[in-house]
Amino acid sequence: MLKQNWILILILLPFLEFSQNDSLFIRKIYDECLEKGHSYEDLRSLCKEIGPRLSGSPQAQMSVFWSEEKMNSYGFDKVYKQEIKVPVWKRGNKETAWIKKEKEWIPLHILALGGSVSTNGLLSGELVIFQNLDELKKANPKNVEGKIVFLNQTFDQKDINTFKAYGGCYSIRGEGAIEGAKKGAKGVLIRSLASGIDTHPHTGSMHYDDNVKKIPAAAVSTSDAELLQNIIGKIELFWEMDCFSGEEVTSYNVIAEITGTKLPNEIITFGGHLDSWDVGEGAHDDGAGVIHCLEALRVLKALNYKPQHTLRVVFFMNEENGNKGGLGYAEWVKNKGEKHIFALESDRGGFTPKGFSCDGNFNLIKEKINLYSLYKPYEVYEFEKGYGGVDINPLKKMYPDILLFGFVPDSQRYFDFHHAESDVFEAVNKRELELGCAAITSFIYLLDNL
Amino acid sequence: MLKQNWILILILLPFLEFSQNDSLFIRKIYDECLEKGHSYEDLRSLCKEIGPRLSGSPQAQMSVFWSEEKMNSYGFDKVYKQEIKVPVWKRGNKETAWIKKEKEWIPLHILALGGSVSTNGLLSGELVIFQNLDELKKANPKNVEGKIVFLNQTFDQKDINTFKAYGGCYSIRGEGAIEGAKKGAKGVLIRSLASGIDTHPHTGSMHYDDNVKKIPAAAVSTSDAELLQNIIGKIELFWEMDCFSGEEVTSYNVIAEITGTKLPNEIITFGGHLDSWDVGEGAHDDGAGVIHCLEALRVLKALNYKPQHTLRVVFFMNEENGNKGGLGYAEWVKNKGEKHIFALESDRGGFTPKGFSCDGNFNLIKEKINLYSLYKPYEVYEFEKGYGGVDINPLKKMYPDILLFGFVPDSQRYFDFHHAESDVFEAVNKRELELGCAAITSFIYLLDNL
Repeated sequence: MLKQNWILILILLPFLEFSQNDSLFIRKIYDECLEKGHSYEDLRSLCKEIGPRLSGSPQAQMSVFWSEEKMNSYGFDKVYKQEIKVPVWKRGNKETAWIKKEKEWIPLHILALGGSVSTNGLLSGELVIFQNLDELKKANPKNVEGKIVFLNQTFDQKDINTFKAYGGCYSIRGEGAIEGAKKGAKGVLIRSLASGIDTHPHTGSMHYDDNVKKIPAAAVSTSDAELLQNIIGKIELFWEMDCFSGEEVTSYNVIAEITGTKLPNEIITFGGHLDSWDVGEGAHDDGAGVIHCLEALRVLKALNYKPQHTLRVVFFMNEENGNKGGLGYAEWVKNKGEKHIFALESDRGGFTPKGFSCDGNFNLIKEKINLYSLYKPYEVYEFEKGYGGVDINPLKKMYPDILLFGFVPDSQRYFDFHHAESDVFEAVNKRELELGCAAITSFIYLLDNL
Repeated sequence: MLKQNWILILILLPFLEFSQNDSLFIRKIYDECLEKGHSYEDLRSLCKEIGPRLSGSPQAQMSVFWSEEKMNSYGFDKVYKQEIKVPVWKRGNKETAWIKKEKEWIPLHILALGGSVSTNGLLSGELVIFQNLDELKKANPKNVEGKIVFLNQTFDQKDINTFKAYGGCYSIRGEGAIEGAKKGAKGVLIRSLASGIDTHPHTGSMHYDDNVKKIPAAAVSTSDAELLQNIIGKIELFWEMDCFSGEEVTSYNVIAEITGTKLPNEIITFGGHLDSWDVGEGAHDDGAGVIHCLEALRVLKALNYKPQHTLRVVFFMNEENGNKGGLGYAEWVKNKGEKHIFALESDRGGFTPKGFSCDGNFNLIKEKINLYSLYKPYEVYEFEKGYGGVDINPLKKMYPDILLFGFVPDSQRYFDFHHAESDVFEAVNKRELELGCAAITSFIYLLDNL
């Protein structure tokens, strides 16, 4: 019996040692992020000194300069940019809208959806309410023609993961203007895609169809949606938006690398998107994501870690309204003949980490690393199949064997801030952000050591 | 092979059915909490209409009325109060302090510690800084005599669970005034027990020793602590506090029950504490806790659940500065000859649920219920040995076999708000609070069905 135990120990020894080294290094990563972290101050600087960063805006351009300088200050092996073309859409004068209820004028909290056409002056019309897109699709055009559609779909509060509730409502924002125009509507308002009831409207991208008239589209706050749905009788809306689209302009993905010592030609990409919507400060979406990944590379360098593969942080441009950064990156690296093995994206906010999702066969990793045990001291426990992210998704087409990972933080507060003026630096908690940095840094370290 | 499978299925069938019933009922609990929950509005009412509720204050007395009325409005089988005596301590005029740095007067953000004596007019003296209580204990009395001690121990940011960091610093607040007085100090300031750096001082209970002089004690904000530790040379402090202690007064634990259908004499107690410190609104500490438990009883009633055991919610009074509610309750129920089998406390804030801790043998539960599997859809995953809570802890002495449980939410933001003016209703997220209610309701349901 004694002999058998010794044999077992001898067999397991290399694995135990490997695992112990990992857990010691992960502890060092967490200590660096929590005690000497740069993430919170870097995010403050990006949010407060640059602000919101819609593709094609001067702020987006400044954020490219900011990123290059910040990356250079950390002394990585390489810092460079990849040129891309991005669409230009501008809000113009701030949008305004009122409803008339009996003799009272009530102003609404409203934001144009990204990409919307203007109202071409003050637009007025009767509001016709639908609870979701299907109701609108089934409506008799006579009841919609010449009116303004209001799509009032609510988040399903029963979904534990708020991204699922968001997915359930997404079509009213994405397709509302197309379906409204098909029925002859003059414009479309949607209830903001948000968990809570408050006065912040939430913008986001929308689509037009070249075969259908382009009508203006905007989101109203959830508190206004509650108001509208409770009004009995006819509602008249008065509405003006001056937004417009311009010609494509040049912009950039911003990239930093530590070169691999053993397999420099095999690349692990991790990043988030540098652009944001033009309200708030893009703090959770996706300031937190780019800062998570920047901090991961900084921490590995600070700990004097020499990666086997090339570790590459990418700040993608234009995730919000075009994904030109993600599409351009995948094409560019494929054309250069680079070999990409893993990619990770952080684009779900700077909240307490829960785990990682894998678009691909997660078991390939879990068979080799006991993620549950290594992450247990850090209260990170979820390693399941799921989406990687919008920016890294195009890599799948170029590299069918690549594993894509998404960083998964707690989702409960995300849709209080998403695409709204409330998404500011103050909405990010320092420890939650730092724990996200540490979880991601550790994951990149583990992938590099597979 | 086929036959063996059938036998296995037949053996497992009752267990599977039981487990399926449980999971269906838990889904109903979550739906009720998330879609038709009362918790958020009840917490708003407690925080905004009553406010902070220090034992012995008029607000604490009003909160007893509020609780009785609210419980009665839900139509529980019994609503009643248990009389206790509570200490009285009052802040008096708001405390003030300045330091003099060269020719500049700098006001400090300061709060008397609960139970402190006054400064007896404007007190001034030289500040002497120690990094922790041990340094003070080892100091030469000559260097402390006639001075004011400043204890500057920082939270250990490396602790993943912030309660551990809090525990590590607790002694400077609890014992600082005793150790300072032993060395002849005129007073003691401490760095607030808080995770972040901001301008909110955090109060909390402190102790005196009857054999040592009682000297005044207060907390300064972490931002002021950073300021003080960076000043080179002598710091002179000017400080006044008018706080005082009064005679004990009558107060109450407030109690609501649904009577058990099968075992009415076996009691499951769950609760939090109704009192709070006298700044902020006691939203996370412990408005969230009492509302969690109130909502649990309401939801079980709303779902027409008939418990086997008697389910009893207790709003304990005086957790913060005396624990007279918890001590009194344990003694009272023992004297009445009641049988108590389980107790659960929520006193760690209204954040996203992580799980439950058990002061006792958790395996007794885990062998009978697959908590991990039942809670997996709700992202609740931690079921480990740990503390129950201050209010229910005295039950252990009375009932050696009782199992005590603590509700464990995410801890990252708790010490931004704990005992500070920032602990207001707005610091609580609606979904996070509701998910806590649902997790606790489900746990009480499972305990009742063991």
